[in-house]
Amino acid sequence: MSPHPEQCDTLIVPPIAAPANPELSARLQAALDNKTKPRGSLGRLEGLALRLGLIQGRLLPALEQPQILVFAADHGLAAQGVSAYPSTVTAQMVHNFLRGGAAINVFARQHGLALQVVDAGVDADFAPAAGLLDRKIRRGTRNALHQPAMTATECRQALARGMELLDTLPGNLLVVGEMGIGNTSAASLLLARLGRVPLAECTGRGTGLDDAALARKHRVLEQVLARHEPARTPLAALAALGGLEIAMMAGALIRAASQRRILLMDGFIAGVALLVAEQLAPGTRQYAIFGHRSAEPGHRHLLRLLDAEPLLELDLRLGEGSGAVLAYPLLQSACALLGEMASFADAGIRPEA
Amino acid sequence: MSPHPEQCDTLIVPPIAAPANPELSARLQAALDNKTKPRGSLGRLEGLALRLGLIQGRLLPALEQPQILVFAADHGLAAQGVSAYPSTVTAQMVHNFLRGGAAINVFARQHGLALQVVDAGVDADFAPAAGLLDRKIRRGTRNALHQPAMTATECRQALARGMELLDTLPGNLLVVGEMGIGNTSAASLLLARLGRVPLAECTGRGTGLDDAALARKHRVLEQVLARHEPARTPLAALAALGGLEIAMMAGALIRAASQRRILLMDGFIAGVALLVAEQLAPGTRQYAIFGHRSAEPGHRHLLRLLDAEPLLELDLRLGEGSGAVLAYPLLQSACALLGEMASFADAGIRPEA
Repeated sequence: MSPHPEQCDTLIVPPIAAPANPELSARLQAALDNKTKPRGSLGRLEGLALRLGLIQGRLLPALEQPQILVFAADHGLAAQGVSAYPSTVTAQMVHNFLRGGAAINVFARQHGLALQVVDAGVDADFAPAAGLLDRKIRRGTRNALHQPAMTATECRQALARGMELLDTLPGNLLVVGEMGIGNTSAASLLLARLGRVPLAECTGRGTGLDDAALARKHRVLEQVLARHEPARTPLAALAALGGLEIAMMAGALIRAASQRRILLMDGFIAGVALLVAEQLAPGTRQYAIFGHRSAEPGHRHLLRLLDAEPLLELDLRLGEGSGAVLAYPLLQSACALLGEMASFADAGIRPEA
Repeated sequence: MSPHPEQCDTLIVPPIAAPANPELSARLQAALDNKTKPRGSLGRLEGLALRLGLIQGRLLPALEQPQILVFAADHGLAAQGVSAYPSTVTAQMVHNFLRGGAAINVFARQHGLALQVVDAGVDADFAPAAGLLDRKIRRGTRNALHQPAMTATECRQALARGMELLDTLPGNLLVVGEMGIGNTSAASLLLARLGRVPLAECTGRGTGLDDAALARKHRVLEQVLARHEPARTPLAALAALGGLEIAMMAGALIRAASQRRILLMDGFIAGVALLVAEQLAPGTRQYAIFGHRSAEPGHRHLLRLLDAEPLLELDLRLGEGSGAVLAYPLLQSACALLGEMASFADAGIRPEA
């Protein structure tokens, strides 16, 4: 490993085992086919049950102590007017999360997921609070229009802190969510660079830009991408174009996959963190279940790159992990299908009689 | 009212009030827009919250004592080999429901919905059992290839018993599900006749027919439809082509809508019952929320006729009410969005700061 801080592709990532297992897969499929229903009639819920069984390496998958980590950070690029909201809203929303008033709180309570907020780099100081994890790297990234958003060291630090968070986190399912004014810009830039997608197709209205503001955002992002033309490796691109919350999410996803946790994915920004994670630690994506198809236009490219078919399509574009948690009961149903439904033999039904 | 039993379009249906209310609608929209999220960012969940508020006529909709009724009946037409399963499976599945082993039991337990099975016309005798409601009209319909499936009197009785079930049922949300070998055939025939859809586009594989069996089913259904050419009013078509469970479901839906209950709809067969209900009692459909888009091909025509956009699309084709109950947590989320999320004012957030 090179000690040079700019040599940033030397991050140590944990090994990730493949969940595929032909013998277990056949046994899971047989169990599904013997349940009291026409074969295949529960559609994608059956494929979901099979995947959960493979990820957990057992015939009766179960969700235990599911965890949500919402990563918050600010973005220097927000100074260029790329968001409909000012950066101050990031810290205000952190307070809202801590008081339990945001959408992700509501859905987490509904479905019994534990929620913690990770300060990855909000441009504000917080008093210690229950449910808030201080992992701040710095108060916001630098303005990527003028310099790399992070140094290589900061970027590696963010990834490492994301990984370390998983060392003590209970449970076997992780949702990563995010809050950061300006972070659809960072996500669009990373998708364009690392996914080789035309920038125009990666850029959307975020929290709600009008046409003129969207055009301005696109022009700014074009300049940013051109300025960081040499940053082409995953770590270099992440440092130059990314966000502290995106880097920390990527680290969390990598370590969680190495621990064989289910990664229940939210939309565009969390998805870009997974793209980064997969490029740094191939195999991470195999632990991912995609909660929803976002209304943010870049998401369809991201889903294609990740070969993903989301469970829900409800035109959500909120982030925070909200779309992932809305899909959570479908994972519970898939587990219950295997664990609780009677087989034809149990029920004394002879479908060929 | 004519006393003549063939004069079957004289069913007395309860009046159904329109839930639309421009003033309440505006207040609900304002409440949604003031929640701590970018405007519209919860996508279709916001539209769902608004509809639930309008159906219940209040700013804070809530789901109380949700009920599932699974209607079971047999079909004389099954003798023509239109299903992959023999008619005996209907009664076997009723026992499975009563023991709690079917998919609908599993999902109902998961989400806390009460479940009762209604014997509308199964071709078997059941001992009295907890959770089983005996509303049997007769042991299966007649074979519609040779004669009307029901007499006009039986058809009206089935509708009336469906309505009466709602008189004592608690709660403000109803799922109707069904079990009946052969009932996709009855549903396809009703959709073709009452929806004026080409029969070929109404006919699918049901529980899992192969190509040859699908072709045979289509030929049988063509003959049935031709035989009952004169049966063109909703009640005449329902009697000639329908099923006892479909008729009883239609009655239940009509009465439930008149009581302003939310009708959380399952897939193809329950959907056809709603089409019948809407033609008998216009306005019923306004109380419906569509749980999922079925893999059964006729469902897309049905959804178009009912101007419906379902919440889930998971290639389900099981029936029983399963797809409706899988969507239930989204309705809970929509209520929680209005009831539990902080407003910008609550959270002290000034998005325009």
